[in-house]
Amino acid sequence: MKNKLPIALSNRHVHLSESDLEKLFGGGHSLCELKSLSQPGQFACEEKVDLVGPRGTIPGVRVLGPTRDITQVEISFADARKLGVDAPVKESGDIEGSPGLKLVGPNGEVDMEQGAIVAARHIHFSDKDAEEFGVSDGEKVKIKTSGDRSLVFENVTVRVSPKYSLEMHVDLEEGNAAGVSNGDLVEIIR
Amino acid sequence: MKNKLPIALSNRHVHLSESDLEKLFGGGHSLCELKSLSQPGQFACEEKVDLVGPRGTIPGVRVLGPTRDITQVEISFADARKLGVDAPVKESGDIEGSPGLKLVGPNGEVDMEQGAIVAARHIHFSDKDAEEFGVSDGEKVKIKTSGDRSLVFENVTVRVSPKYSLEMHVDLEEGNAAGVSNGDLVEIIR
Repeated sequence: MKNKLPIALSNRHVHLSESDLEKLFGGGHSLCELKSLSQPGQFACEEKVDLVGPRGTIPGVRVLGPTRDITQVEISFADARKLGVDAPVKESGDIEGSPGLKLVGPNGEVDMEQGAIVAARHIHFSDKDAEEFGVSDGEKVKIKTSGDRSLVFENVTVRVSPKYSLEMHVDLEEGNAAGVSNGDLVEIIR
Repeated sequence: MKNKLPIALSNRHVHLSESDLEKLFGGGHSLCELKSLSQPGQFACEEKVDLVGPRGTIPGVRVLGPTRDITQVEISFADARKLGVDAPVKESGDIEGSPGLKLVGPNGEVDMEQGAIVAARHIHFSDKDAEEFGVSDGEKVKIKTSGDRSLVFENVTVRVSPKYSLEMHVDLEEGNAAGVSNGDLVEIIR
């Protein structure tokens, strides 16, 4: 059974709904693709917004496309402290009970009611990969990294979809804590 | 045998030699204690310096006292990237081969030849604590944290001295990756 897969570090980023995109960048605006991401159909955009919280601002945060049903901001714990919000660790898409932020774009602002989260670490598996690794959607696994700062991440969420490409996602703090770089191989512990 | 101990998160900080202290803050300057730290005799100072690297500056970094034989700067991987230096993971005091930084104080500057490190995670044990935990100086142990972001830190250095007070030290990125706060209890895995 396979047990090694690549890891990638996600920096803070923003997913926008169509209506919030238009508020921030103007009516009829479409996202401009800067480069494609590893997950099929996902891309980093030219567009950036400022995140404004009760205690501070983080300027120039990258928007990822395509647009989604709901606006969501993924930040680190360090970012949350700087902004002054108590962002919970949540699966992407599960923003219930999370705090909002003000987003500032070149054409306007959006006051989010909720949607600022620290994304739970997770692994994307295609259906075929999931079979080869012997895992199923929603399962939690342990992942071991190697090197000076090696550690074992517990509570890693398995996400399976035919649209996914095999990759573990952690935030920058998690990646730096483990001393790993994009593309390094990590191992499922059984 | 005991297996639980408190963890503490270290933010970036600077240890100064007497001569560098005088270059930065003026001849005859003594460090002003702001508050004592958990390790006996160690304290945070009123004094701050700017760290300047080839790619960026981090202003207002706290000096810790007392002065030491050698100036040493402890930063995170994120800080190292911002500054533009390739700081290695090292035990405190072992700065051989590490890059330097420019330190800027109110009265002058210091161009370090070396001394910028990412401190290796470690645990301080008094002799008595070491006996109660069954560990010895220089040994590497595994430490498990609890909660949403629970993980197991491998390669944690045991440091034993009669001067030490029982505590694990990680940097902010490691602490945030584990979702822990100062004083949370962690566990040695045997």
